Amino acid sequence: MNTVIEQPVLVAGQWRAARNPVGTFQAANPATGTPLPAIFPVSSRDEVLEVIQAASLATQGLHDAAPEKIAAFLERFADLIEARREELVLQAYLETGLPQATRLDGNELPRTTNQLRQAAQAARERIWTQPVIDTKLNIRATFAPLSGPIVIFGPNNFPFAFNAISGGDFAAALVARNPVIAKANPGHPETTRLLAELAFQALQESGLPAASIQLLYHFPDEVGLELVSHPLIGATGFTGSKNAGLQLKGAADRAGKPIYLELSSINPIFILPGALEERLDTIASEFCASCNMGAGQFCTNPGLVVLPAGPLGEAFLQAATNRFHQTQPGVLFSLRGVQNLEHALRTLLEHGAEIVAGGHPQESSGYGFTPTLLRASGQTLLQQSEALQTEAFGPTSLLIFSAHEDQMLEIARRIEGNLTGTIYSHSGGQDDTFYQRLEPLLRARVGRLLNDKMPTGVAVSPAMNHGGPFPATGHPGFTSVGLPAAIRRFTQLHSYDNVRPQRLPAELQDKNPTGRLWRVIDGTWTQGDVS
Amino acid sequence: MNTVIEQPVLVAGQWRAARNPVGTFQAANPATGTPLPAIFPVSSRDEVLEVIQAASLATQGLHDAAPEKIAAFLERFADLIEARREELVLQAYLETGLPQATRLDGNELPRTTNQLRQAAQAARERIWTQPVIDTKLNIRATFAPLSGPIVIFGPNNFPFAFNAISGGDFAAALVARNPVIAKANPGHPETTRLLAELAFQALQESGLPAASIQLLYHFPDEVGLELVSHPLIGATGFTGSKNAGLQLKGAADRAGKPIYLELSSINPIFILPGALEERLDTIASEFCASCNMGAGQFCTNPGLVVLPAGPLGEAFLQAATNRFHQTQPGVLFSLRGVQNLEHALRTLLEHGAEIVAGGHPQESSGYGFTPTLLRASGQTLLQQSEALQTEAFGPTSLLIFSAHEDQMLEIARRIEGNLTGTIYSHSGGQDDTFYQRLEPLLRARVGRLLNDKMPTGVAVSPAMNHGGPFPATGHPGFTSVGLPAAIRRFTQLHSYDNVRPQRLPAELQDKNPTGRLWRVIDGTWTQGDVS
Repeated sequence: MNTVIEQPVLVAGQWRAARNPVGTFQAANPATGTPLPAIFPVSSRDEVLEVIQAASLATQGLHDAAPEKIAAFLERFADLIEARREELVLQAYLETGLPQATRLDGNELPRTTNQLRQAAQAARERIWTQPVIDTKLNIRATFAPLSGPIVIFGPNNFPFAFNAISGGDFAAALVARNPVIAKANPGHPETTRLLAELAFQALQESGLPAASIQLLYHFPDEVGLELVSHPLIGATGFTGSKNAGLQLKGAADRAGKPIYLELSSINPIFILPGALEERLDTIASEFCASCNMGAGQFCTNPGLVVLPAGPLGEAFLQAATNRFHQTQPGVLFSLRGVQNLEHALRTLLEHGAEIVAGGHPQESSGYGFTPTLLRASGQTLLQQSEALQTEAFGPTSLLIFSAHEDQMLEIARRIEGNLTGTIYSHSGGQDDTFYQRLEPLLRARVGRLLNDKMPTGVAVSPAMNHGGPFPATGHPGFTSVGLPAAIRRFTQLHSYDNVRPQRLPAELQDKNPTGRLWRVIDGTWTQGDVS
Repeated sequence: MNTVIEQPVLVAGQWRAARNPVGTFQAANPATGTPLPAIFPVSSRDEVLEVIQAASLATQGLHDAAPEKIAAFLERFADLIEARREELVLQAYLETGLPQATRLDGNELPRTTNQLRQAAQAARERIWTQPVIDTKLNIRATFAPLSGPIVIFGPNNFPFAFNAISGGDFAAALVARNPVIAKANPGHPETTRLLAELAFQALQESGLPAASIQLLYHFPDEVGLELVSHPLIGATGFTGSKNAGLQLKGAADRAGKPIYLELSSINPIFILPGALEERLDTIASEFCASCNMGAGQFCTNPGLVVLPAGPLGEAFLQAATNRFHQTQPGVLFSLRGVQNLEHALRTLLEHGAEIVAGGHPQESSGYGFTPTLLRASGQTLLQQSEALQTEAFGPTSLLIFSAHEDQMLEIARRIEGNLTGTIYSHSGGQDDTFYQRLEPLLRARVGRLLNDKMPTGVAVSPAMNHGGPFPATGHPGFTSVGLPAAIRRFTQLHSYDNVRPQRLPAELQDKNPTGRLWRVIDGTWTQGDVS
């Protein structure tokens, strides 16, 4: 009898062995390419259905929970993460190859606990409910939890901050009092299991329903389609590849289930002539750092740079090339990541781009890949605008040399939906006339517009938009980062018409439930009571 | 040579004959069944593509327009509607059969001009932008127009208030400075043409781009699918049949284009025993009036009533039946409406419902239909819950007699997504224990929850939710009535990161652009400037 010990799944309030798994998998250490010891189950359809049932049964209990309990849970979880910091950072390093000190420990872990604590505050203060009270007609409205659990698919590139069991989507879903069904990213299942252990410990201490959070590591693709379109599901949050995301979107759309997707983005950077005249070296430095950080595996990696053809543009390319040559190869998350990147580069080359630096795996070091720069003319981009916007996920960027201003504007018109778009211009204003022509074209195509700054930092701010027009995401009105806006995705609008006062939810009663909640009463935002 | 004179279409700023129409159609007078004289073109694919191009070219100009111009346009349009009031009311009566005095003139026309003026105020005050400013990180966000025109499909049942060229969707799209491509409902094309004349006159006086509003009457179904999924389109608003809506949704979803749908709703009413004991006759009266108003052709018609089996329930049925027998037959909008209603009734009968009043067309009076009541047991509903939730659009309702409390709760669990749900209960509180069990089940399934009041009135209030879970609409987070929420559908989130102050849109600059705009500055809602 074969007795492989597999890691347990978290189902219906219990850590247990997967029931009749349809397979197993192991993650690999990207720095070496060798498999890691832990073995994880691929869950069966029956197990997924069991998870859905358990989450559904927990839905009402979680809806009825006091906001304070949700807040306490999120804060306790953040504390537990900090208490196991070293172990988490080491495990995430082993599974992702991301730098331990500068990235995982120094940046992503504190970002994650900060997000959880901000979410706790949002839960406690109920700011996501945005109540509207019309006293004359006695109609009152508030955002409320969805009517079913939220499925969250975590991406490969943020093992903590976007993890399905600890990241932004997880926190947003819980703040709105929805149960979470977390699907681990198979690139870092053990990191995810460790986080889920802590989350579940905090959950048990909180007194919230035990099936409020559940974790599976993997299931067959067709089961995923059934999951996101299941009648009992409330909505889905997905961050990952365009191909997988569009499959899930199709299934969810047909079933009328909301699905929020972050799919792909090449984050165009336009560098205007005055900026190059003024600070070419500084921009080249920023660009090289931004493009190679985390081996370029950011949703907001600057993958396309448009700049003027001619001596200044060539000097920028030279400065960037020198820096790319001096940069250590990045370590990609997986062998598949290497293959996908090679495939994307082939597509770019077949459509007129040329490699000027890197362009190949660094096989001596696991899933290493050399920092890669490509170039093409503006004319080529216009002829091949779809193919040359292929996302090459990794430490790569394509520089487009635009022959003249009108061509640069035409390039902007061809840009697909992206998370971000950036314009560098002369600080003294000499590019301003052209900026005014370029900005509306770029603005219409991106969720976040930047000036004079690379887009790779996604601050956790209420004014952030980590979203954008299709195909960057599935809907241009929502963001996955920034509270309370990110919570809105996992809510529905509930209006109460002539409902008796004592039957209203706390947010809509005459008395302000926290004494601080901002509500619109007869057209005025106020923290007061209904007078 | 055949010289049929067809009514002109409004394309690219011109009233002109349709180019190479693929057919023609006429509306009929529902009160008599006779065709009305005006002949309307069915537009070709080429004409639809021309409309898309023209709207797309107007997009940036409209985005750049001063809010005051939009407001002035909407107000002038409202004035022009009032100036042509008699002609509009008569024409709408001829095409819809709705009562002239009580409905069209006394209710729907003033509602429409009121909506336009509220929208003008929302445009002027920019309240839909909901700006968020993070001064520490210098990130600022606002809702902005979409990046393309809005397609609006008007329904048959509100010739003014939901008309594609004068209704709520039209106003919401324009407030957010998006061009509108209006598709008339073929039931009232001449009313729509008259409204479009007035809208276009107001537009020309406003100085806004001439293709900001366009009107077609009809086009082949497959062209509609192409329209809502066209790359240049921003989004679609559709109110109409579930079948047509789901076809459009499929096409729009696949293209990643937002589409907002209002599809169908049977608006369940739960009447608890105490309410029947206390005020059976009053409720029967309210129910009969609500169900027969406008021949029951309301999205919020009370199509399903759940009440206790036994003497009280039977007494209610008797009281309602008496009133239904005394009520004049309603006039449906079209022959197709009569056929659809007969088909829906057959479905209900085949699945265990029985007719207790009406149930047949009144052919002597055009598209008349007798006020119709059906009954079934709770057990039957549970056995046939899908078929017995078939929408029967017209003056009809199905009464369900529930054997006991648990059965009533189980019925609530089977209710599909609806616009509204209502609970009548004893005013002294004797039903309150049961209310607390029933309410969460109903609440989860409807957009608007009512107490002790029929749902057919949809007040234009900022706290209204005229929306609800699928399949009532396509997304439970949006409403088509109520400002500013209804405007949100036609916007996208725009974040500005480190953008230079003078380059920010007015809403995000330090100085409050109106002196009254509510903005979130560092977590606080304020009408002030950034200090």
